[in-house]
Amino acid sequence: GAKSLLIPVLPVDIAEAIEGLPESMQVIAFRLLSKAEAIEVYEHLDTTVQQALIQQFKQQEVLDIVDKMSPDDRVRLFDELPAKIVRRLLSQLSSGERQSTALLLGYEEGTAGRIMTPEYISLKENLTLAETLKRIRSLANASEVVYYLYVTDASRQLTGIVSLRDLVICEPETTLGEIMTRDVVCVHTDTDEVEVARMIQRYDLLALPVVDREQRLVGVVTVDDILDILQQEATKDIYAIGGLQSDGDNYFQTDLITVVRKRVLWLLVLLLTNTVTGTIIKTQTGIIEKMAILTAFIPLLTGTGGNVGAQSSTVVIRGLNTDEIRTIGSAKIIFREGLAGILLGVILGALAAFWAYFLLHANIAVAISVGISLIGIALLAAVAGSTLPFLFQSLGLDPALMSAPFITTAVDVLGVLIYFTIARMILNL
Amino acid sequence: GAKSLLIPVLPVDIAEAIEGLPESMQVIAFRLLSKAEAIEVYEHLDTTVQQALIQQFKQQEVLDIVDKMSPDDRVRLFDELPAKIVRRLLSQLSSGERQSTALLLGYEEGTAGRIMTPEYISLKENLTLAETLKRIRSLANASEVVYYLYVTDASRQLTGIVSLRDLVICEPETTLGEIMTRDVVCVHTDTDEVEVARMIQRYDLLALPVVDREQRLVGVVTVDDILDILQQEATKDIYAIGGLQSDGDNYFQTDLITVVRKRVLWLLVLLLTNTVTGTIIKTQTGIIEKMAILTAFIPLLTGTGGNVGAQSSTVVIRGLNTDEIRTIGSAKIIFREGLAGILLGVILGALAAFWAYFLLHANIAVAISVGISLIGIALLAAVAGSTLPFLFQSLGLDPALMSAPFITTAVDVLGVLIYFTIARMILNL
Ligand SMILES: [Mg+2]
Ligand SMILES: [Mg+2]
Ligand SMILES: [Mg+2]
Ligand SMILES: [Mg+2]
Ligand SMILES: [Mg+2]
Ligand SMILES: [Mg+2]
Ligand SMILES: [Mg+2]
Ligand SMILES: [Mg+2]
Ligand SMILES: [Mg+2]
Ligand SMILES: [Mg+2]
Ligand SMILES: [Mg+2]
Ligand SMILES: [Mg+2]
Ligand SMILES: [Mg+2]
Repeated sequence: GAKSLLIPVLPVDIAEAIEGLPESMQVIAFRLLSKAEAIEVYEHLDTTVQQALIQQFKQQEVLDIVDKMSPDDRVRLFDELPAKIVRRLLSQLSSGERQSTALLLGYEEGTAGRIMTPEYISLKENLTLAETLKRIRSLANASEVVYYLYVTDASRQLTGIVSLRDLVICEPETTLGEIMTRDVVCVHTDTDEVEVARMIQRYDLLALPVVDREQRLVGVVTVDDILDILQQEATKDIYAIGGLQSDGDNYFQTDLITVVRKRVLWLLVLLLTNTVTGTIIKTQTGIIEKMAILTAFIPLLTGTGGNVGAQSSTVVIRGLNTDEIRTIGSAKIIFREGLAGILLGVILGALAAFWAYFLLHANIAVAISVGISLIGIALLAAVAGSTLPFLFQSLGLDPALMSAPFITTAVDVLGVLIYFTIARMILNL
Repeated sequence: GAKSLLIPVLPVDIAEAIEGLPESMQVIAFRLLSKAEAIEVYEHLDTTVQQALIQQFKQQEVLDIVDKMSPDDRVRLFDELPAKIVRRLLSQLSSGERQSTALLLGYEEGTAGRIMTPEYISLKENLTLAETLKRIRSLANASEVVYYLYVTDASRQLTGIVSLRDLVICEPETTLGEIMTRDVVCVHTDTDEVEVARMIQRYDLLALPVVDREQRLVGVVTVDDILDILQQEATKDIYAIGGLQSDGDNYFQTDLITVVRKRVLWLLVLLLTNTVTGTIIKTQTGIIEKMAILTAFIPLLTGTGGNVGAQSSTVVIRGLNTDEIRTIGSAKIIFREGLAGILLGVILGALAAFWAYFLLHANIAVAISVGISLIGIALLAAVAGSTLPFLFQSLGLDPALMSAPFITTAVDVLGVLIYFTIARMILNL
């Protein structure tokens, strides 16, 4: 539509077109590109496609491309390749690229050290702006980050930041030391990538410097990579809430076996939990034979309870991951969820009792049992749904494990217990 | 911990501290700030807090602050204020700020026009880089976007972009026209903000120019605002998958009534669907009275079916929202989900039948009914879970409406039907 009128064909677009081709065509299409284009396009391919292509290239083709990649993109590719190939490629890289790649590979996956680029500009503070501009002219091509200049001292420790904006605005005779910001926001090499992302978002930065244990500047994380990391994190959360495992792969690029593998573990856990519900119902066959109508309300009660619990766990998990919850205490949140659970239980319980009595023609005692059970189940679901993610977080586990599918199934078990207990009491069975 | 050692106290941090205070203290704390600080801190407060403060300020305090805000942040605040206050504030702004605010307010919420900033630098292409640098010195303070310079022609149409990086690297005698990129990626004022975000992410941009119908440059969207929009979108998706309505408000800052309102609508829809399941079970009381053990498997069958369906709908909804699905046909995806459903059904069905026969001591015919039903239910759930989001998307509705809670409940209805039909056949009841 209107979009295609405006957008020129850029390397990302070519990469996407190639990704859409059948695998046998991908290498042919790729070889039609000029060498310069090929290098740019390759960087933008999905790692699965990068990997497939690399196995079909000749030795020299591979090296030409891999040597030109940014160190952070190269490390992302290496993460997917067999260790043997990585070792061979690494030994054949030009020495500067080998060094910077080895540096990044030395940090753990998911940390600032792994996603930073070592291609930034660092200068000494006694330089004047005129001198700095001259230096930048020679350095800019080898550097990914040019909009911030980093000022370091003799021991390579980060002492300040000057933006290219300030450099251009201020008088050429000024020194960097005079105009630099000394209130530097920075992270350590082992800071979690998601924490890095939150800081870039919080302080509206284009790049964030990374220092090692001795406070020496070793790299810079850029905002374009942060956009990808935040998207991946959101997908992980969404998959967890939908009851799937996620490892950052593109679900739609994996094969059927991987798909089943990603899904079956959670389903088995939930199946196991569900057998408990079944076992509880089995112990109630006496009362069911006397009053079969009671079973008609099981899906409604457990289903509604599950939905209330899913809501509570969803808001808490998302709140924990976006830091919205940080300044609020967990007790306050659980208490409010409990209140919401009671309110929702009263509304829904009244409606369910109404439906049971007037539309399903159950007797009044059954209808009352259904209504009261629903209040208890909604309260329990809201409290469990909000408490369990906090509990997991405080145990150092991923709160997303306590997401909708688990809460829903757990509420099934307890819901059935509550229902039959209340029904027995009210119906005197 | 280590973090607080490194991070200086910046306006965002002060804003967060104020947000954490009880409402009555917020205005007192805010008044302790210097005027310059107050202006910066105010921009970073949540709109709910901004709104509360504005009602307690004196006329002149309000104007001092609001006049200094960026036009895009100001518009976001105005969106939350009563129309009467907005009109009064608007009329009291300085004329430049009034104009730019009115421009943004003229575009619909959720579009590029509404989130762009009109504070960018545009120049003519015959300017030399030396002249440009001089111009930037005078313009940079009034401009939010300085890392890209936009080149426009006599009719204000966007013809090219020069990055500050290129400006600094190239020879001072060169003209902008010689070094500018003519392959400009840009969007229209009415482009959806999420589409804008996807483009910034796709092309690794720091800012994206916005043009009107006549291709004239009217504003620029910056990456820092895109980070917030993507986070908000992810929260919306996550809330939809958890069965809550989301309108971009911070859930934890709203009152109990709003919380209940956000949740009760979905719960009512699901309750209604669940009554159908109940009604179906009621029609089966004959068979249940004869064989009460059958009811012990209802939660397991509907629960597992619901979980399989939730997985399928989750991956499709997320895929549609991240464009991962764009190049793959819906038929191919639904077919693969169906296959996965059968495979999962076979694994889980075998286990469920085993459990029914050996552990719950149901008779063999019941165990077989449970196993076969589970295969049918898993297939149905996977197909429904993947088809419905596509269907909604093609009808122009939000695919997230067909998320886990709805699919789960719909599968309850159909699952019970399938189960009793198969059981009747196999058990000859
Ligand atoms: Mg791609
Ligand atoms: Mg390089
Ligand atoms: Mg991680
Ligand atoms: Mg921000
Ligand atoms: Mg990068
Ligand atoms: Mg990149
Ligand atoms: Mg805030
Ligand atoms: Mg202004
Ligand atoms: Mg929107
Ligand atoms: Mg990108
Ligand atoms: Mg802005
Ligand atoms: Mg901002
Ligand atoms: Mg359920």
